[in-house]
Amino acid sequence: MASEEGVIKIKRNKQVILRDNVSGFPKESDMQVVNSGTIKLKLPEGCEGVLVKNFYLSCDPYMRRRMTKYDPGASYIDSFNPGSPISGYGVGKVLESGDPKFKEGDLVWGITGWEEYSLITGTATQSLFKIHNTHDVPLSYYTGILGMPGMTAYAGFYEVCSPKKGETVFVSAASGAVGQLVGQFAKLSGCYVVGSAGTKQKVDLLKNKFGFDEAFNYKDEPDLDAALKRYFPEGIDIYFDNVGGKMLDAVLLNMKMNGRIAACGMISQYNLEQPEGVHNLMSLIMKQVHLKGFLVFSYYHLYGKFLETVLPAIKEGKITYVEDVAEGLESAPAALIGLFAGRNVGKQVVVVSRE
Amino acid sequence: MASEEGVIKIKRNKQVILRDNVSGFPKESDMQVVNSGTIKLKLPEGCEGVLVKNFYLSCDPYMRRRMTKYDPGASYIDSFNPGSPISGYGVGKVLESGDPKFKEGDLVWGITGWEEYSLITGTATQSLFKIHNTHDVPLSYYTGILGMPGMTAYAGFYEVCSPKKGETVFVSAASGAVGQLVGQFAKLSGCYVVGSAGTKQKVDLLKNKFGFDEAFNYKDEPDLDAALKRYFPEGIDIYFDNVGGKMLDAVLLNMKMNGRIAACGMISQYNLEQPEGVHNLMSLIMKQVHLKGFLVFSYYHLYGKFLETVLPAIKEGKITYVEDVAEGLESAPAALIGLFAGRNVGKQVVVVSRE
Repeated sequence: MASEEGVIKIKRNKQVILRDNVSGFPKESDMQVVNSGTIKLKLPEGCEGVLVKNFYLSCDPYMRRRMTKYDPGASYIDSFNPGSPISGYGVGKVLESGDPKFKEGDLVWGITGWEEYSLITGTATQSLFKIHNTHDVPLSYYTGILGMPGMTAYAGFYEVCSPKKGETVFVSAASGAVGQLVGQFAKLSGCYVVGSAGTKQKVDLLKNKFGFDEAFNYKDEPDLDAALKRYFPEGIDIYFDNVGGKMLDAVLLNMKMNGRIAACGMISQYNLEQPEGVHNLMSLIMKQVHLKGFLVFSYYHLYGKFLETVLPAIKEGKITYVEDVAEGLESAPAALIGLFAGRNVGKQVVVVSRE
Repeated sequence: MASEEGVIKIKRNKQVILRDNVSGFPKESDMQVVNSGTIKLKLPEGCEGVLVKNFYLSCDPYMRRRMTKYDPGASYIDSFNPGSPISGYGVGKVLESGDPKFKEGDLVWGITGWEEYSLITGTATQSLFKIHNTHDVPLSYYTGILGMPGMTAYAGFYEVCSPKKGETVFVSAASGAVGQLVGQFAKLSGCYVVGSAGTKQKVDLLKNKFGFDEAFNYKDEPDLDAALKRYFPEGIDIYFDNVGGKMLDAVLLNMKMNGRIAACGMISQYNLEQPEGVHNLMSLIMKQVHLKGFLVFSYYHLYGKFLETVLPAIKEGKITYVEDVAEGLESAPAALIGLFAGRNVGKQVVVVSRE
C-alpha cells in the first residue's frame, strides 16, 4: 500500500466554499475561495466514480435556491452544505474513471464541484454527459447553450409551450443563458418574439444580435401592463417566464385565449424573504391559459435530439450565443452574485482552467 | 296583420332586473323583481329564435362576473345590462320555434332570461340543448348535474386533470354543483378525495352523502397548509380549484411532483375590489405542476359522451346529487346572493314554474 500510494500525485485543489446558508440577497462574502485544499489524483480503491479536472463552471439562477437551508424534501434540490465546496454545472476532463461509461481523457459536462479537481461519485455520475463534439464550438458552450440552460430552453419552448408559426412570444430575462436561446428558437419557429431585460446594453443585444423583433428595459417601464400592451396589442400566446413576480402578474393580463406560460424560473423572487403575491390568476381561467412549471431534469432523454438541432444551427450561424466569462476560481463568487444583480451580459461562465 | 295580431296572447312576464352594475359584495337590492313586463306569446315575423317558457333557473358563481361592468373584450363573457333581465342557464319548454333544431313542446336547457318567458335569439340559440331524457331524472337536474356545472366537473376532472387510479384529489367548494360531482368522479376513478366546504352541514354531506374520503370546514382551520398536510401527508396529485386565493396558495405548498391543478373558478375573489396575491407559485416549478385554467364552453363537444356516463350512473344510484331549491322568481335575488355567502347547500336552483 505504501509504495502504491507513493506514486499518487497530491495536488493543491483550490475551492469555492459556502461559508453559511443564506437568506435574502447573497453576498460575495457568503463564499470563500480557499487555497488550502488538496486532492489525491487517484480514484479510491473500488470507486465507481469519476475524477475530473474542471475547466469551466456555470453560474445559474437555480443555484440561489441551494444557498438557502431547506428541510430535507422541502425543495426539488438539496441545499449546499456550509463548509463544503459549492457545486453546479461544469465542463471538465476525465483523469480517471471507475465508471465504464467514461475513460481517461473524455471531456464531460454535468454537475461538478467549484474547485480545480472533483471526485464525482454516486448518482452525480448519472448526470454526467460525454462531450462528443470537441471541435467547431467552444467547450465552454457545454455550460450553457449545449448544456443544461440550452436543454432548458429547448424543452421549455418546444415541449412545454408547443409553439405554432405566427404566434406571439414573450421572454423575460431574455439575454440570459436560457432566454437568448428561447428567443432564437421562437424566430426559427416563425413566431413574433419580444424580450425584456434590465439594461440598455442587453436590450440592444436582444434586438441586434439575437434577432428579437422587439425588446425593452423593464426598469424603464413604470407600468409593465402598458409596456406589454404596446408590444402585444393582440395579446401573448406564449410566455417563457424566467422572473415571476410583477412581470408574471402583468403578463397574465395580456395573455391570449389558450395561451401557454412555461414557468422556468422566478429570479425576481429568489432573494426575497417572502415571495410577492401574484394577483391576476383569474386570467388563467378567463383565457384558458396553461401555466406549466417544469424542470429540465425531466427532459434529458431529449438531449440527443436537442444536440442534433442546435449544433448544426450554431455551426451554420443560425443561432448565436453570448457568454460573459469570468477568469479564475477567485472571480467565481463575484460572478455568481452578479447574476442575481443582473450584472452579467449573456451566459455567466467561470474559467477554472483552459486545458 | 291586425287580425293575425288579434290571436296573439299577451302575457304578464315577471322579470328579475339588474338595477345597476355591482362592485364589491352584491346585495339583493342590486336586483329587482318586476311584475310590469309583458310578452307576446308569438315569435316575431321571420324570427329564427325560440320562444321558451322557463321552468328552472340556475344560480352559478360565474354570474358574479357579469354583474360588474367590464370594457368590451376585457372579459370572456359580457356584463349584464342594467335595467334588463339577468340571464343565465335554465331549463324550459319551447312554445314556438323559428329554429329548425327545435319544435313546440321540446324541453331545452341553455342560456335564458330570469323571467317567466324568454325569446332566445341569435347566437344564444346555439347554446340551447334539447333534453331527450325526460323521465327518471328531475328536469331541474339540467341546470346542474346534467347541464353546465356537470359538464364543467366532467371536462375539468377528466380532460384537464387526467386522473389516474390511486391518485390523491382535493376539491374546494366541494358541496357546490361542480364540486360534489368532481368528488364522486374521483371516487369512481379510484382516487382518494378530500373536500373543503364552509359549514359543518356541508362537510357532513361530503362525507356521508357524496362519499368523499375526508372533508373539512375551511373556516375552522386557522392554518390551511397544516390542514392539507393532515389530510394529504404525501401531497396532492390533483387540485380542482373552485375558490382561488388563500386556499390555492396553501395547496401550492402541498402539491406532489407532476401534479395538476384545474382552475375552474375563484369564488373567494369575485367580490373583492382587488384580488388577493398568491405567493407560492414557485412550487409550480419545483414540483412541475400544471395549473390549467379552463372554460366549459370549450368542451361542449363532449356533452353526448358526458350524458352517456352520468345519466346511467344517476339512475343506478352510483352518483348522487343535492339541490337547494328556491321557489319562485321572487326568491331569485336572495338565492343568487346566498351563493356568494355560501348559504346554499348543494346546487342552487330557482323554480319559476313546474310545468
